[in-house]
Amino acid sequence: MNESPRILTLTTDFGISDAYVGTMKGVILGINPNVHLVDLTHAVPPQDIHEAAFTIRAAYPYFPKGTIHTVVVDPGVGSDRQAIVCEIDGACFVCPDNGVLSYLLQDVDNSTELQMNAVAIQNPAYYLPKVSNTFHGRDIFAPVAAHLSRGLPLADIGPRVEKLVQLPIRIPEISGNAITGQIVQIDRFGNAITNISESALAGEVSGYEINLQGTRLTRLNRAYAESAVGEPLAIIGSSGVLEIAINGGSAEKQLGLKRGDAVVIRKLYESCQKI
Amino acid sequence: MNESPRILTLTTDFGISDAYVGTMKGVILGINPNVHLVDLTHAVPPQDIHEAAFTIRAAYPYFPKGTIHTVVVDPGVGSDRQAIVCEIDGACFVCPDNGVLSYLLQDVDNSTELQMNAVAIQNPAYYLPKVSNTFHGRDIFAPVAAHLSRGLPLADIGPRVEKLVQLPIRIPEISGNAITGQIVQIDRFGNAITNISESALAGEVSGYEINLQGTRLTRLNRAYAESAVGEPLAIIGSSGVLEIAINGGSAEKQLGLKRGDAVVIRKLYESCQKI
Amino acid sequence: MNESPRILTLTTDFGISDAYVGTMKGVILGINPNVHLVDLTHAVPPQDIHEAAFTIRAAYPYFPKGTIHTVVVDPGVGSDRQAIVCEIDGACFVCPDNGVLSYLLQDVDNSTELQMNAVAIQNPAYYLPKVSNTFHGRDIFAPVAAHLSRGLPLADIGPRVEKLVQLPIRIPEISGNAITGQIVQIDRFGNAITNISESALAGEVSGYEINLQGTRLTRLNRAYAESAVGEPLAIIGSSGVLEIAINGGSAEKQLGLKRGDAVVIRKLYESCQKI
Repeated sequence: MNESPRILTLTTDFGISDAYVGTMKGVILGINPNVHLVDLTHAVPPQDIHEAAFTIRAAYPYFPKGTIHTVVVDPGVGSDRQAIVCEIDGACFVCPDNGVLSYLLQDVDNSTELQMNAVAIQNPAYYLPKVSNTFHGRDIFAPVAAHLSRGLPLADIGPRVEKLVQLPIRIPEISGNAITGQIVQIDRFGNAITNISESALAGEVSGYEINLQGTRLTRLNRAYAESAVGEPLAIIGSSGVLEIAINGGSAEKQLGLKRGDAVVIRKLYESCQKI
Repeated sequence: MNESPRILTLTTDFGISDAYVGTMKGVILGINPNVHLVDLTHAVPPQDIHEAAFTIRAAYPYFPKGTIHTVVVDPGVGSDRQAIVCEIDGACFVCPDNGVLSYLLQDVDNSTELQMNAVAIQNPAYYLPKVSNTFHGRDIFAPVAAHLSRGLPLADIGPRVEKLVQLPIRIPEISGNAITGQIVQIDRFGNAITNISESALAGEVSGYEINLQGTRLTRLNRAYAESAVGEPLAIIGSSGVLEIAINGGSAEKQLGLKRGDAVVIRKLYESCQKI
Repeated sequence: MNESPRILTLTTDFGISDAYVGTMKGVILGINPNVHLVDLTHAVPPQDIHEAAFTIRAAYPYFPKGTIHTVVVDPGVGSDRQAIVCEIDGACFVCPDNGVLSYLLQDVDNSTELQMNAVAIQNPAYYLPKVSNTFHGRDIFAPVAAHLSRGLPLADIGPRVEKLVQLPIRIPEISGNAITGQIVQIDRFGNAITNISESALAGEVSGYEINLQGTRLTRLNRAYAESAVGEPLAIIGSSGVLEIAINGGSAEKQLGLKRGDAVVIRKLYESCQKI
């Protein structure tokens, strides 16, 4: 072993009650015992492609270049949906072509630098010998990812694909002095993560009001602890977007928030400039 | 390090809220820092030997030969139940002798090729120095498994055991043109996994009816997506047995299924031939 | 790679539904791909410093010397609370200075041999380039721990700290022939773990009565299985302290126990001697 092990992450909706994830790891380690496995999450709500798409886009930049991300949220398993390997920004994604890369592909669309390079998984030489109808995570995605971690070129896996499935992704709307965004994810702490980026607030911590579901906030915290325990607050979270939280509590429960809820920011003195 | 790390899996009913599993890993890595640890599941319902037995049998074939599987579901910890190491089919199982290998031993019983080779764990040289009454996972099973991963021969662990504890395992009954099986496990998606193997249906996707708890199905899906969302369906699942599922939903919740429920298949034209 | 990988454990209140923990691992592996990561637990109740302090103290002795333990339960993230690296007993702890080491520091206070050696984390050369206000686990603790695992000296991280935050920790009180302790943790099985150590019972398995929440026990089990299924029992658990359990059930649910509940032991014949 002269070099560092390749890193291979797993993101699924399989949960960890069953041994499905462990079984995928057995398949991978049987092909490449020197890979370093990392669980990103297995708690994607069953078949929630949007949540998986958001999660993998938020996490992948924190892994070293060359990391292989296997994302198996696959309601169409066994149907004619395509399976793909897609390289973006030095990372390699192994997944069904069902929209699970939508946030990443949006980044590519919005960038002059990022490119995507995808192939369809079609070469059964890299599958398990017997492929089930219900568990391609084990039978196709895991072994293909493991072979990739050993250096298999993309071209050996299948033909190029130029266009991947993309889900519509809501982006904030600007109208006059108001920005209307949405809650896109709620985390374990009950923090509500929006799609409104830090830049929309132009570095200002006051001078606007934030309204959501009857709650009104008029400033941006630098730390949770700036607010009293139990108080709702707005903060730029770890993904660089606006989050609504409660110091020492759950904004989800206490404010009754859920994914898709509108969040409206009104600039008090002038129009918002950019998002 | 000239060779690949040995793989060591962990299956317990310890959950992951407490640090019990992490502590076992500390013990193992203190003895062999080059082992590759894989969690199979720690969500076996507390003291549910049957579930652990089903899980380990379903998962082990997907790991490379030489993998060590530590299975600690151990209601008799501290009593006089025996602890064992058992080799079957190129895999090595470290566990209490309480039936947790029942499905594997059934395979051995039904096979002319498989053999089991077991020893009782009796050599305290391979335990932690202080053995508690309540946590042999940490004090006995983890260190013994770690020593095995470094090449310790079975004979150094304790004397041979010829007969292991086996739980009664229900197998489907055939009567005339009907097969009566049971639901043996329900997974995170609410899919109900039966003990009726693919071969019982002789490769036919129609020509019979499947009855369970008031639900009647008349064909076998090739993919979940062949049925409309919300519809119950039958499919050969990833373990090669009949599963009852709901496309995009939970068969457990929507059909009110639970482990042990009868599943009856009636061949419409002729007797069923084999299981 | 001429030596064994360093072990780095993670203890957080992040849960495993979100990808926060996986993201920390990406950061760590980008700095040191040869570290061996172990999850101790991510199910510390949100912001429950006491629980994290109890957990890390119970688990760390089972890891080899040189292990790095990253403990991120951090309600004060983004405030002026200090971040520290602290060496105790051959282990290295990377955490906020908020009391999360209280049980360990109590050990140091009560010992003539143990010492603590701490520095404040103040050198941004070892942080991620961009530090958020809400996720120092990813931006500070993970990269600092990863650099430590590569051999970074403590002195390069920041100045020495002589006094760390310590939470008050309740210890049992002795009065006449009675010891009054408390339940300090309840595990996944519903076992109630107390702060009364084995030595308080002086090796005797009878001759006293144990009272808690209306339940009275008069002997100490050597194994759960010594009591009938469903019966409450007292046993010295895996941490060397008195635990209240139910054979085959949950003492928490069946006896209505919770953290902080008093547990009173009355010696029937003479005063208790020591704790």
